Amino acid sequence: MTGDRLRVGVVGYGYWGPNLARNLNELAGAELQLLCDPREAARERAQLRYPGLVTTAEFDDVLSDDDVDAVVVATPVSTHYGIAKAALLAGKHVFVEKPLAASAREALELGMLAAAQGLVLMPGHTFLYSPPVNMIRNLIDADALGEIYSISTSRVNLGLHQPDVSVVWDLGPHDFSILRHWLGEVPSHVAALSRGCILPDTPDVAFIHLEYKSGTIAHVELSWLAPSKLRRTTIIGSQKMIVYDDTSNEPVRIFDSGVMIRDPESFGEFKLSYRTGDIVSPRVEAAEPLLLELEDFCKAVRTGSTPRSSWQIGLDVVRVVEAVEQSLAREGARVPVVLEGADLAHDLLPARDLL
Amino acid sequence: MTGDRLRVGVVGYGYWGPNLARNLNELAGAELQLLCDPREAARERAQLRYPGLVTTAEFDDVLSDDDVDAVVVATPVSTHYGIAKAALLAGKHVFVEKPLAASAREALELGMLAAAQGLVLMPGHTFLYSPPVNMIRNLIDADALGEIYSISTSRVNLGLHQPDVSVVWDLGPHDFSILRHWLGEVPSHVAALSRGCILPDTPDVAFIHLEYKSGTIAHVELSWLAPSKLRRTTIIGSQKMIVYDDTSNEPVRIFDSGVMIRDPESFGEFKLSYRTGDIVSPRVEAAEPLLLELEDFCKAVRTGSTPRSSWQIGLDVVRVVEAVEQSLAREGARVPVVLEGADLAHDLLPARDLL
Amino acid sequence: MTGDRLRVGVVGYGYWGPNLARNLNELAGAELQLLCDPREAARERAQLRYPGLVTTAEFDDVLSDDDVDAVVVATPVSTHYGIAKAALLAGKHVFVEKPLAASAREALELGMLAAAQGLVLMPGHTFLYSPPVNMIRNLIDADALGEIYSISTSRVNLGLHQPDVSVVWDLGPHDFSILRHWLGEVPSHVAALSRGCILPDTPDVAFIHLEYKSGTIAHVELSWLAPSKLRRTTIIGSQKMIVYDDTSNEPVRIFDSGVMIRDPESFGEFKLSYRTGDIVSPRVEAAEPLLLELEDFCKAVRTGSTPRSSWQIGLDVVRVVEAVEQSLAREGARVPVVLEGADLAHDLLPARDLL
Amino acid sequence: MTGDRLRVGVVGYGYWGPNLARNLNELAGAELQLLCDPREAARERAQLRYPGLVTTAEFDDVLSDDDVDAVVVATPVSTHYGIAKAALLAGKHVFVEKPLAASAREALELGMLAAAQGLVLMPGHTFLYSPPVNMIRNLIDADALGEIYSISTSRVNLGLHQPDVSVVWDLGPHDFSILRHWLGEVPSHVAALSRGCILPDTPDVAFIHLEYKSGTIAHVELSWLAPSKLRRTTIIGSQKMIVYDDTSNEPVRIFDSGVMIRDPESFGEFKLSYRTGDIVSPRVEAAEPLLLELEDFCKAVRTGSTPRSSWQIGLDVVRVVEAVEQSLAREGARVPVVLEGADLAHDLLPARDLL
Repeated sequence: MTGDRLRVGVVGYGYWGPNLARNLNELAGAELQLLCDPREAARERAQLRYPGLVTTAEFDDVLSDDDVDAVVVATPVSTHYGIAKAALLAGKHVFVEKPLAASAREALELGMLAAAQGLVLMPGHTFLYSPPVNMIRNLIDADALGEIYSISTSRVNLGLHQPDVSVVWDLGPHDFSILRHWLGEVPSHVAALSRGCILPDTPDVAFIHLEYKSGTIAHVELSWLAPSKLRRTTIIGSQKMIVYDDTSNEPVRIFDSGVMIRDPESFGEFKLSYRTGDIVSPRVEAAEPLLLELEDFCKAVRTGSTPRSSWQIGLDVVRVVEAVEQSLAREGARVPVVLEGADLAHDLLPARDLL
Repeated sequence: MTGDRLRVGVVGYGYWGPNLARNLNELAGAELQLLCDPREAARERAQLRYPGLVTTAEFDDVLSDDDVDAVVVATPVSTHYGIAKAALLAGKHVFVEKPLAASAREALELGMLAAAQGLVLMPGHTFLYSPPVNMIRNLIDADALGEIYSISTSRVNLGLHQPDVSVVWDLGPHDFSILRHWLGEVPSHVAALSRGCILPDTPDVAFIHLEYKSGTIAHVELSWLAPSKLRRTTIIGSQKMIVYDDTSNEPVRIFDSGVMIRDPESFGEFKLSYRTGDIVSPRVEAAEPLLLELEDFCKAVRTGSTPRSSWQIGLDVVRVVEAVEQSLAREGARVPVVLEGADLAHDLLPARDLL
Repeated sequence: MTGDRLRVGVVGYGYWGPNLARNLNELAGAELQLLCDPREAARERAQLRYPGLVTTAEFDDVLSDDDVDAVVVATPVSTHYGIAKAALLAGKHVFVEKPLAASAREALELGMLAAAQGLVLMPGHTFLYSPPVNMIRNLIDADALGEIYSISTSRVNLGLHQPDVSVVWDLGPHDFSILRHWLGEVPSHVAALSRGCILPDTPDVAFIHLEYKSGTIAHVELSWLAPSKLRRTTIIGSQKMIVYDDTSNEPVRIFDSGVMIRDPESFGEFKLSYRTGDIVSPRVEAAEPLLLELEDFCKAVRTGSTPRSSWQIGLDVVRVVEAVEQSLAREGARVPVVLEGADLAHDLLPARDLL
Repeated sequence: MTGDRLRVGVVGYGYWGPNLARNLNELAGAELQLLCDPREAARERAQLRYPGLVTTAEFDDVLSDDDVDAVVVATPVSTHYGIAKAALLAGKHVFVEKPLAASAREALELGMLAAAQGLVLMPGHTFLYSPPVNMIRNLIDADALGEIYSISTSRVNLGLHQPDVSVVWDLGPHDFSILRHWLGEVPSHVAALSRGCILPDTPDVAFIHLEYKSGTIAHVELSWLAPSKLRRTTIIGSQKMIVYDDTSNEPVRIFDSGVMIRDPESFGEFKLSYRTGDIVSPRVEAAEPLLLELEDFCKAVRTGSTPRSSWQIGLDVVRVVEAVEQSLAREGARVPVVLEGADLAHDLLPARDLL
């Protein structure tokens, strides 16, 4: 680091890389040191935007550059593991676009490696830095909602189909990371139903049931085939209910509604009472989540703090995606969310001790 | 019948009975002959509303009244079978509020009996007479939507919890009958997740996956615990998409949107093209579905036609509810939708021959 | 009165009369004594609904019936004055559907007469009993909005054209009475623009500017020609803003938004700061305004209290309608809201002394 | 011009200038030649964005630069006249941000001068290049709406107060130019009501009545004080109605609704029939209006065509603003829209002959 500035090498300048580069460039605590992309056109686009930026087609140049403190990875999912591992082994801190890796096994190994090396490994779960998501997290933490009975969420729009990745891998990590952040737990079981409507081998619509040990149940609808964009999550608590809509001017709406059992001791007719109270749309701070996320990465490197979007959360997200894939492979059967295989569990235990 | 007028005995004057009585009273083809309810207060309410109406506390009075051509049943679900069976055996046509019976076995037996007696047996699936539902049915029949990829529906509101019935039995029949009406098929498999949030033994939130032989997949969300009333169904077809919202001034919205695979023969990069076209909210005829439903019942009695809400549809709906209950009993496992048990199948086969 | 029950004669059983009759019938404090309508069909409809109700074609029968304590008038506007005056002279309390009369002169004369006779005269400004309207009134009274800068309101829908009355006389009294109730003042000046789009002599679209001595300005849009029903009022206060929408599930929305002048003493650049805070949709009590209104009438008769919808408010509403009509007659000129003519003022002065 | 490329000098790099510069930079037919702003900070911002761009603090440098074919002016309204006049006299084509000038007299003089010089003078009425605005214009031209009865529009939001300009000068030109574009006529009379709520001398809320010779009436609501942004225009035609909402995903909604007089020859009861048909949200082409506008300017220079946003329209818009200001100065009186004063008329007549 130059003083307090983290010198960053960005790997991958395709769809998401430019957003990362732009925010890194605006960040006081970071410096865009080097950009790596095998595609000449991508490198040229970057240089047009950042005159003077050093670029390279060779990832090895990033690894061997002593002026690079950290690597920010925005490449296809299948390459995350290899790139992140090499960077960690080269002593670089690593930020990887979500999902952290293509399997829980890979994600765990990366996490173990980072822990062993004393380096930061952080997946890019941007929604963990979204002001409305955190406002809801704070309400849950303060027990303002009471017991969380159920959560139902729809994340649908028309496009973007991706040739090599299903809608579960593409959109699922958003909801799985948000749920993990809110509930502080990973689902115990999932069951899923999906269809490849346009390309038979690429699921583009998925319905997912999630069960939690705490009793919370959840449903996640993901789709690239929808008449209009929908980002709507409903949280039903015993004290209050919340509707979170990321596309709305009022992203968080808090409903003081509920049901109570009246006269619990009375013998005779069953009676429930419905409570419908005020609805509040609290003012939500305007802030760019991606900027906050990269700031958290810089801070983690600088101070040794654990980033909110930790690799453990990244691992948990991949575990859920994998469980969903398993359920789909088994015709929608209900499957537990576990790390697969006994040897993986074996790897895990000593590693957890290390942390 | 007096001339063309069907003389009707209404059994049950609780929550829904008054609606049936009111519509029967307005119907040119029907006559409110007799009302039966064991509760004195209910009978008094009816007489206040319809001065001169003959009422009785005894169901036997209905059965033995030769001036009663048909019985309209609006009693708790658990009593449907007994009342409808007795009425059919007494030679009365029968209209039963949805669901037709408390089990597929009961529903089938009632259907067989009605067929054997040459009497009309009709369950009250009112949505089959809803103008927007039928407009969509007509669009599907005319193949305007193309292949039906998936359907997602939410039927949620705050209340009404019922002491003896789950949200699946209460709200599910609406969606299951609509889907049966639109798709002309029963799901082959279901998987469900539910929770009794307020009363542990009474599921009040349920998420249900449905798979169809045709390839269509569907998701149904049912809840008595929601911040606001939602009646929203999205249908994704290969040619068009539809949003059906029963609470909106524009209950049917048709989106000329879709995805196409471009250059299918080109070697090289994968390309999809997204089409977003006009959105049309067709004018939907204003009509009272309940009135149309009862008219259809009268017509079926008068002319021998099969009512749109046939007992076979009523049976199919109960089969789906039962399958959902089975899935819930088996922790959300994916279960086939079948008539349960070998003996039932045995009963069924000769009966089907009769029809 | 029979004990505490007000014995009421209803005059006019056309569009609104049935609503009044129904609510009077439900009211513990009132008794439907007699119904008068010259049209045989109307009387028959009433008797079908209320078996045993005495009806008459002759208004004189109402006047001469000693068992009638009060007359409720739901006849065309042009007849209000004659009927109400006769009833007051016959010693009956009078409730008149809005507007109170066809001119301010008539309204004033009726008010004077009622005062002189010690009888209640009440116009049917139902919105003065609407829970959201009163919630806003209470907020204004508690100074929660700060200074009321401006109010903008739209009351539009498709239909109902009336052959003898403009949209100003038909819909205007709703907004003028609400504004009078909220602001406690009558506009000092109005200017209006209208058009008879369908029938050249019957304005069916009107735009109305209102100025108040307090500084508040308002705009009222009234129309029978609109693509969809709109009932939307925006109130801009120096502390808070409110949107009142009578067709919404959230009829009152309170916005904690505003503008502040920063650094008022600083020399140099002008600076304003915009404040956008929480939005609250308070729970609004569900209540039938028409029932509350008729209860207030009964109470006024019984206890001598002034009804919220007093004849003075009824007079003020008619004064505004008349001023709007004058503006329209003078091609949209800005005109003051006054009682017309010197002799009217002359009538008024001693009368005010009486009160 | 260099070949077909228009060499442009941009004057003013404050709020709107950067948008103009960015679009000019993207335009194949234009070249950003020179940028002029007296503020050093503004010039630095421009150079950071466009490395190599020549900038100057002196407007004379623009005038005397033979490589500048056209001047694009984005300075405060009060300076438009002086800058545009000097540029025209120097033989440059001129594009001026809306409004064209601070008075009709100025606007007319500029127009006359441009005509005399054979140069293009174009005001930046961007909405004339907005796809939804033009879709509606085309529908009106094709007589799809029938007679235009009335138009009602709201353009309100919280902020932006400007120290030297009222909400009428700031927001009014948008609506006045759109109405001019749609209706092809200037209002004959206006009447307005406004208030300076925050700064007494700067109206921030305004209600404006507009009357047209064709019979159309319109109402425009403008405000910097509103709980939420609203851009809603309703057009009532005899055949169809349209709602145009620039903030919506469905900016144009066409309602096939209306009223018809039935049985016009029948003697007896008055009868109207209401027609409510389909609602269509046509797909609106996505295009950047500002880019289309600047393209039209380049084309006008290159080919001699009249730009859609002609100086005559710019003059008409200023005439309406001036009439509104007059109405406000005369306490909301209804005033005709004319060029003020006899001498101006005198100037005008020979000038019109020239054109």
